[in-house]
Amino acid sequence: MSKLVECVPNFSEGRRPEVVRAIVAAGEKCGVKILDWTMDGDHNRSVVTFAGEPEAVLEAALAMIREAAARINMEEHRGAHPRIGAADVVPFIPIGGVTMAECVALARRLGERVARELEIPVYLYEEAATRPERRNLADVRRGEYEGLKEEISRPERRPDFGPARMHPTAGAVVIGARKPLIAFNVNLGTDNMAVARAIARALRAKDGGLTFVKALGVELKDRHQVQVSMNLVDYERTPIYRALELVRLEAARYGVPVVGTEIVGLVPLDALLGSLEYYLQSESFSRDQVLEVKLNA
Amino acid sequence: MSKLVECVPNFSEGRRPEVVRAIVAAGEKCGVKILDWTMDGDHNRSVVTFAGEPEAVLEAALAMIREAAARINMEEHRGAHPRIGAADVVPFIPIGGVTMAECVALARRLGERVARELEIPVYLYEEAATRPERRNLADVRRGEYEGLKEEISRPERRPDFGPARMHPTAGAVVIGARKPLIAFNVNLGTDNMAVARAIARALRAKDGGLTFVKALGVELKDRHQVQVSMNLVDYERTPIYRALELVRLEAARYGVPVVGTEIVGLVPLDALLGSLEYYLQSESFSRDQVLEVKLNA
Repeated sequence: MSKLVECVPNFSEGRRPEVVRAIVAAGEKCGVKILDWTMDGDHNRSVVTFAGEPEAVLEAALAMIREAAARINMEEHRGAHPRIGAADVVPFIPIGGVTMAECVALARRLGERVARELEIPVYLYEEAATRPERRNLADVRRGEYEGLKEEISRPERRPDFGPARMHPTAGAVVIGARKPLIAFNVNLGTDNMAVARAIARALRAKDGGLTFVKALGVELKDRHQVQVSMNLVDYERTPIYRALELVRLEAARYGVPVVGTEIVGLVPLDALLGSLEYYLQSESFSRDQVLEVKLNA
Repeated sequence: MSKLVECVPNFSEGRRPEVVRAIVAAGEKCGVKILDWTMDGDHNRSVVTFAGEPEAVLEAALAMIREAAARINMEEHRGAHPRIGAADVVPFIPIGGVTMAECVALARRLGERVARELEIPVYLYEEAATRPERRNLADVRRGEYEGLKEEISRPERRPDFGPARMHPTAGAVVIGARKPLIAFNVNLGTDNMAVARAIARALRAKDGGLTFVKALGVELKDRHQVQVSMNLVDYERTPIYRALELVRLEAARYGVPVVGTEIVGLVPLDALLGSLEYYLQSESFSRDQVLEVKLNA
């Protein structure tokens, strides 16, 4: 099996499609496969998903950061989503034949080159973080572009690579490595937001729930329903089925049924097979038994 | 998506690995991908699974039948499994970008060439059958090699292609087209064979169960358990989850739990995703959301 790394960079541009297209094109030239890209006008932000061999992914990420830096001016950027730079967050994700350690090394090499070649300050986060307080993206991004500009020269906010001052237009960038994230939403047969919030609290790690679950209650106005919206940040240790069945268990306390679920975006095959094996009570199942996997082997 | 046909020929040789290897090699030369091959000494039979573009699969099947005919003598063949020829059964299965009608056409073209080039009588079965009474493989194979040899000249047993006499060493061959078959076993927390048999009857089509399920009770002596062993012959219309949950429902009547299940051999991704969508109550899920599917697209 060849080595495969996924990269999901977020850019601070969600209103000018020609800019996002230019960023995507810059990456695509480096021999990676663009899997998806989306824009959000309110957030004024775009998310690109691509994958390829580690070296190609490194070059593509660098090319996209360079393109974003040339076309986005953070001094003029407004949007609903927290951000500190034109290329805001760039995570590497091990997908196949690659360890997390290799993705961490890739993140550090990219950080070093972004600092040297583009003179943009770089923060390392999640698995690539150099200090525990930088693991969490929200902590790195505290104060956003405007606030970090004031604080960047303070010792505790100095970047891991590059100058201790913001790039005049591109700001700063957060680079790191993490596991695949699954966006999983469970819709409930009630319009009572208190129920959705209570279940979200019961599910999420920080309030005593499952270790690798982030959860929020969300209102689905058109449907007159509420939703428990989750991010599963380590599906190997907190699988989809466990999150769903725990939502069901908590909802039963209020006499509320699960009416449906959705997985948003891409999901690794192993995450799906793992949950199916639970429901089927499989004693022995290997992904090599999937006809299409065997065909592509 | 390119056109993809699977072929799962069965050969009357399960004791001489060099013969099976030669048969496999003859097919492999035609540019198909060998996915699996297994031998069974008691049955004196082997099963090969391969896939590829339709024309390559046709040539590979022909080459394997030719090789089997040259190396297997049905006059000397003994084994526990019913059979009528050296190459005994050759089904084509639509896997991707191919209709059942195309697989039926492929089966007929192969039948015509086997008859003409190898002088082996050919029967068409399942979706490729020319008469309703030949759809079912067991009916075509009635009397086995020895019995068919006597009856082949009778009008009702005349082959679809080729001479109305057995090939002196290779016998006859059954060629056809069918949907993918899933071998799915459910293990029960009891050693009571009466329970396994009763559940198998409740599940299988011919006794009032699910239309596309064949089921048998099987004893698992080493485990002191029994099993409902099923073939799901149309997973789109009778999916895995429905068979499993119906076994569970029937077993509950006897206070017997499902202790585990197994899928034997290869299974199409869509069959797995379809059942997972049931358990997750998915409102919208597309196979394009599977990262690996998207990557290979």
